[in-house]
Amino acid sequence: MASLLKQGEKGVRSINNLKHRLPVLAVDLGGTKIITAIVSGDGQVLARERSLTLANEGLPPVINRLLLAIAHLLDSRNMKPSGLDSISIAAAGGIDIVKGLVTSSPNLPGWHDVPLREIVGNKYHVDTFLLNDASAAALGEHRFGAGRGVKNLVLLTVGTGIGGGIIIDGKLYNGSSGSAGEIGHMTIDVNGPRDTCGNTGCLEALVSGPVMERQAKERINQGERSSLVEMVGKIEDITAEDIGAAARAGDPLSLDIIGGAATYLGVGMVNLVNIFNPELIIVGGGAAKLGDLLLEPARKVVQERAFRISSQAVRIVTAELGNEAGILGAAVFALEQRN
Amino acid sequence: MASLLKQGEKGVRSINNLKHRLPVLAVDLGGTKIITAIVSGDGQVLARERSLTLANEGLPPVINRLLLAIAHLLDSRNMKPSGLDSISIAAAGGIDIVKGLVTSSPNLPGWHDVPLREIVGNKYHVDTFLLNDASAAALGEHRFGAGRGVKNLVLLTVGTGIGGGIIIDGKLYNGSSGSAGEIGHMTIDVNGPRDTCGNTGCLEALVSGPVMERQAKERINQGERSSLVEMVGKIEDITAEDIGAAARAGDPLSLDIIGGAATYLGVGMVNLVNIFNPELIIVGGGAAKLGDLLLEPARKVVQERAFRISSQAVRIVTAELGNEAGILGAAVFALEQRN
Repeated sequence: MASLLKQGEKGVRSINNLKHRLPVLAVDLGGTKIITAIVSGDGQVLARERSLTLANEGLPPVINRLLLAIAHLLDSRNMKPSGLDSISIAAAGGIDIVKGLVTSSPNLPGWHDVPLREIVGNKYHVDTFLLNDASAAALGEHRFGAGRGVKNLVLLTVGTGIGGGIIIDGKLYNGSSGSAGEIGHMTIDVNGPRDTCGNTGCLEALVSGPVMERQAKERINQGERSSLVEMVGKIEDITAEDIGAAARAGDPLSLDIIGGAATYLGVGMVNLVNIFNPELIIVGGGAAKLGDLLLEPARKVVQERAFRISSQAVRIVTAELGNEAGILGAAVFALEQRN
Repeated sequence: MASLLKQGEKGVRSINNLKHRLPVLAVDLGGTKIITAIVSGDGQVLARERSLTLANEGLPPVINRLLLAIAHLLDSRNMKPSGLDSISIAAAGGIDIVKGLVTSSPNLPGWHDVPLREIVGNKYHVDTFLLNDASAAALGEHRFGAGRGVKNLVLLTVGTGIGGGIIIDGKLYNGSSGSAGEIGHMTIDVNGPRDTCGNTGCLEALVSGPVMERQAKERINQGERSSLVEMVGKIEDITAEDIGAAARAGDPLSLDIIGGAATYLGVGMVNLVNIFNPELIIVGGGAAKLGDLLLEPARKVVQERAFRISSQAVRIVTAELGNEAGILGAAVFALEQRN
């Protein structure tokens, strides 16, 4: 991702007038890692750093590490906060976009109604923005990735959980209090397992890395054969990535587990297709690496079950920008707030 | 509904500049009845007529009756088609808004990819518009009913089936091919009954007039006591309206059936609240007459299961305009297409 500015591309037009702006310090705060980047006003990613979140240590240490990561990046570039247009944070969790709160986060234990925008803004005395990481990814993919030029799209990040971001009429849709897009917490099996969110049979409770890992371990422990055992050694160490690798190598158990997840994912997509009639559904997050292994069965479910006119109108693809989507989306969000 | 024009109201501003326009002939084509109305350019409903659809007679007779209803209304007002701004049809079914087709309709047997916009337009030689009836109702309620001044809302029409209309940022959201809003065909029970649409466990297959009627008949036939029996006489004659009336009079069986439907409806609303974070959900259609009997349990499910920040932001109310919503919405749709 060399430049945010590609003349002539539809989605980029809106920030073309921002080329003389100061850079944004963009942050992607995830459950595993913190990415910080300097994104220039004309769209160059000038610097990027990564550190561990160590989320299990709880709220104060994570906030400290986040502030340190910002300070370190500024220092390494010999920059002062006054040299920034703004700081823009994409965080994994429920966000109150109006008040600038992380309201809750399955990936950040102990975070409840944390005024992260104010904490960071007060520390560095620059305008600070806060949005959900999947919303940022949707914005990033829409402007520079798989969703360029598309009017209406839904992005799903499938990994430890399922996040969502919605682009309507070329703009990020935030809802009335900035917490729209919780697609992972859409019930598709009302009699299904209770999710951490308090709802039952959420898409996230049926399709996610941890669910696939648990299924693989249970089925191997019940005597099913799988090349995962040789591959990993200890059954309890099996990860979703291992299941993906084994599936690509033809392991029937892994293929079956991914097929099951893909079917549920397809049912979730049927709902999105029937409700949004979007041109595009983008799948990002760790599961995007599975590519057509995951998407092909999901597409089949959509073709079979969704309204024909809507299923014919939609393409279902993987994300293009990987981790970069959140950083780029956060920067775009800040720059566009100023228009 | 005396006037579409109420100065100073937010949602109405956009048609204030249309007061010198010719009237729209608005049509609401439902499975039971055809409503035709003349809506003046400054928003008066000048005339209104009603006829029976007799949908079971199939496509050609219904098209004939529709054309006759339009002709009759024009004649009764001594109007010529050339005196119309346009004809705007809200139809019960899947609509291809781009091509002007009724693609399919559970309430209009035999209708598949019917070019209704062209048929009517060619007959009367005026601009003709076609949209889904629940979309029209959403637009009508947004401009003149329960949704005035609201930015983001979702309307559900709950009756024989479940339709949906979505207002985003004050505008009707149609999706990429004009078929967005099929909220009744959102799976909430993946292992549930197969719906006529080909999907399983759709909201519509779990909550609707016919489902409640079937449940009442089955449970009475299995020996449960209910005042419905005295009320109606023949068990096979029980309608959803009867169940509503019996519930209001305190009949435990009817209350239980409505409570069950309300719980499913609430789960559907949880999905909408988590995805859209709307300010308002409006329930229209026949079930709206049940009022809080239906809405109160649904609200409770939303408060229990949806993300707190989104559930706190949403109001769940009944529609205000009844049958008028479709006519008014169709007229607004036509008038706003010209802006």
